[in-house]
Amino acid sequence: MTENPGYVVDDASIAEVARQAGLYGPLAAAVRALADATIRTEVDDDEIRAVQAEVESLAARLRQRQIPGSYGVRFGEGGKGRTWGNAVVGLRNPVAPPLTVEQDPSANGDVWSDFHLGAAYEGPPTFVHGGVVSLILDQLLGESAGAGGRPGMTGTLTITYRRPTPLGALRAEAHIDRVDGIKTWAKGHIVGPDGVTAEAEGVFILPRWAREQTPPPSFE
Amino acid sequence: MTENPGYVVDDASIAEVARQAGLYGPLAAAVRALADATIRTEVDDDEIRAVQAEVESLAARLRQRQIPGSYGVRFGEGGKGRTWGNAVVGLRNPVAPPLTVEQDPSANGDVWSDFHLGAAYEGPPTFVHGGVVSLILDQLLGESAGAGGRPGMTGTLTITYRRPTPLGALRAEAHIDRVDGIKTWAKGHIVGPDGVTAEAEGVFILPRWAREQTPPPSFE
Repeated sequence: MTENPGYVVDDASIAEVARQAGLYGPLAAAVRALADATIRTEVDDDEIRAVQAEVESLAARLRQRQIPGSYGVRFGEGGKGRTWGNAVVGLRNPVAPPLTVEQDPSANGDVWSDFHLGAAYEGPPTFVHGGVVSLILDQLLGESAGAGGRPGMTGTLTITYRRPTPLGALRAEAHIDRVDGIKTWAKGHIVGPDGVTAEAEGVFILPRWAREQTPPPSFE
Repeated sequence: MTENPGYVVDDASIAEVARQAGLYGPLAAAVRALADATIRTEVDDDEIRAVQAEVESLAARLRQRQIPGSYGVRFGEGGKGRTWGNAVVGLRNPVAPPLTVEQDPSANGDVWSDFHLGAAYEGPPTFVHGGVVSLILDQLLGESAGAGGRPGMTGTLTITYRRPTPLGALRAEAHIDRVDGIKTWAKGHIVGPDGVTAEAEGVFILPRWAREQTPPPSFE
């Protein structure tokens, strides 16, 4: 597994990356909004069928030329990785909310994100799916490890649910709790309008196949 | 919280539910495919912008009439709940893969699902996002509790990652491990082409506000 086809070095310049972000970000945002409308629409059956046919036609147009597998991580000028297909933070991924994760410039692993979850992330009625809570906390804890200079893949993840997380405006925070060799323990939580809804602890490990890889992996 | 606007009794007949499934299922599938194409497309910039404008137009058409919030759970004839907005199994939700969860007819809580995860569920390059692994296992463990006649919301969830989960064809399985009062412990795992990739244990609790609710909640 020393050659992962998902690692692509394209040496895109900073200007080129900005251009791509300005092109693909709005497309993904439009598809996200279409997904929300798909869940909630009550228009007539004929209109549903007509929209479906047009959606299929648009997908065929986008597929006229496409990358063979998943997006992976693409490394531009200066070695900075773009994880634009990521299920939580991916700029190009309509399944991702997407979260923008901020980090303390002192790089000690403190990270946070303010975000909004709508109808597409529902579990119990009007609440965020418990598994979406874990999805977001896994990402935040992993970004914390990465922000502290200790990137890795999740070894274990434990979520404690304190109360239901309502759909809407939310915040997630994470920090590094302790480190030992190739393992990093991170903790975090999600905060809703009534306080903390769920807490998480995870251990992140840089696996052997990743340690041997060039360029060094990013798991953001 | 005794009145949750996400619980809707619409008394839809079995035939009407089948009609809706045949209408909304294909629309959601088309939007899912469009999301995949959005991540992977390499067509020209002008074509991207043209498709984006058309996607926005289609969303506006669907929004001409829509439910005010999330889909919630809608109870049809015989009290059967439709959780079609659910982030993992929702028939109408383009963010959901969606999984179809099978259960042992003896109703002892054994459940399983065979499914496929594509580019939209990526974390580390070519692998399923660790948080998506937890999202799916949370759903499977919760369905196991429900299949055993003990529905509930997640109290705690612990995931142990054994190896990276490759994107592609996967299987998830779960069962009830033990029960005590309003708590149900469920265990499960995800299996990839090389064996078990992640294991999960969770406790599911029927909360007070749900125990007091009529009709009884479904957390599928």
